[in-house]
Amino acid sequence: MAWDTEETRRRLKEAAIVEFGERGPDATMAGIANRAGINKERLYNYFGDKRALFQAVLSEQLQQLAVAVGEPEGGLENIGEFAGRTFDHHQEHPELVRLLLWEALSREPPVDEAARGAHYQDKVARYAAAQRDGTLDDEIDADYAIFMVVALAAWWVAVPQLARLLTGANPDNPAERARRRAAVVRAVERIMLPVEKAVADGAGDTVA
Amino acid sequence: MAWDTEETRRRLKEAAIVEFGERGPDATMAGIANRAGINKERLYNYFGDKRALFQAVLSEQLQQLAVAVGEPEGGLENIGEFAGRTFDHHQEHPELVRLLLWEALSREPPVDEAARGAHYQDKVARYAAAQRDGTLDDEIDADYAIFMVVALAAWWVAVPQLARLLTGANPDNPAERARRRAAVVRAVERIMLPVEKAVADGAGDTVA
Repeated sequence: MAWDTEETRRRLKEAAIVEFGERGPDATMAGIANRAGINKERLYNYFGDKRALFQAVLSEQLQQLAVAVGEPEGGLENIGEFAGRTFDHHQEHPELVRLLLWEALSREPPVDEAARGAHYQDKVARYAAAQRDGTLDDEIDADYAIFMVVALAAWWVAVPQLARLLTGANPDNPAERARRRAAVVRAVERIMLPVEKAVADGAGDTVA
Repeated sequence: MAWDTEETRRRLKEAAIVEFGERGPDATMAGIANRAGINKERLYNYFGDKRALFQAVLSEQLQQLAVAVGEPEGGLENIGEFAGRTFDHHQEHPELVRLLLWEALSREPPVDEAARGAHYQDKVARYAAAQRDGTLDDEIDADYAIFMVVALAAWWVAVPQLARLLTGANPDNPAERARRRAAVVRAVERIMLPVEKAVADGAGDTVA
C-alpha cells in the first residue's frame, strides 16, 4: 500500500535523523534500519546509500525550517520576530543544527549545493532590496547580516554548555527561554533595522 | 630530560587536537599516540584517560584564546575590535570551535566546569558594570550579549559551508575575510554600544 510505503519512509527518516544527529558520519545504515525496526534492504531500496540518505534528511529538515519560519509577516521590518521564530524552531528541533555541524565536519561538498545556493541568493536579493528601500539598514551587507541572524538564532543549540556556563540558567525553564529569545530578537533588530527604528522598537521591550 | 618531557607532551597534545577535532569522542588513544609517533603507554602516563586528555586539550585551547584575545584594549568601548580579534583567533585556530561542538555533542558535564563558570561570571560582572556606567548599552543583559558576541565570532568556523552558500565567496580570500571581520565588528558594536556611540563609530567604516 502507498500509505505503508510512506509510513516506512517516515520511520526510516526519523531514525536517520537521530542516528546522524548523534553519530554523524559514523552512523551506519544498519544502525538506522535497526532503530526504525525495518529491514536494511528496504532502507537501501528507498534511499540509496548513506550519503543520499543524509542528503534526503538534511534537505527535508531545511524545508521544514523554511515552512515553519516562513518570511517575516508584514515584511522585513519584522526581521526581529522572524529571528525569534527561527530561534524557536531550533530550540524545538535541535537536530537540524546538529546535521549542519556534521555536514561542516565532513568537509565534503554541501548537500544540495545548487538548490541551497539559489535559495540563499534569492534571499540575499530580497534583503538587499529592503536595504535599498530603507526597510533595513544597509551598513552590513545582506549576505553577512543573514548569516549573523542564523548565528544568533542557532548558537544556543550548537553549544548549549556555553550558554549554561554564561547564564547559569536552565534552558528548559520557560522564563529563561523567553529571555534568550527576546535577546535574539533585539540583537537582530539592532543589527538590521535603521537606527531610529531599532531604538523605537526597543523602547517598550523588556529584556530583563 | 625535562625538555624532552615537555616536547613529548606538546606533540601528544597537538596530535590529540587533530584527532579530537576530526573524530570527537570516536578519537582513540591509540590513534592519538600513533599520530604523534609516541608510545601509547606514555600517552596514558602523561594524561590519564581519554576524557582527561580531552579536558587538558580543551582547557589549554580556551586559555590560548583568552591570552590571544585578551580584554578590549582601552576598555569595553572597544568591544567591536575585541570581537574582531576573537573572530581572527577562531579563523586561525578553527580546532577550538570544533572541540566545543564535540563537547556539546557528548552531552557530558562541561570540561573544567567550575573554573570556566567562574571565569564567565567574572566576565559577566565586568560587562554588567560597564552597562551601569554607560560604556555599554544595557538593553540586552550582559550574559546574553557576551554569548552572542561568541556566536558572531565563531559561527563562521562552525558552519563554513553556510557562509560559502550565502556569500558565494572563498573564505581564504583575504579581502573576503576582512569583510566578514568588519561585519562582525559592526554587528557587535550595534548590539552592545549605546546607540549614539554605535552610530558615530560606524560613520567612517566601510563594510562593503
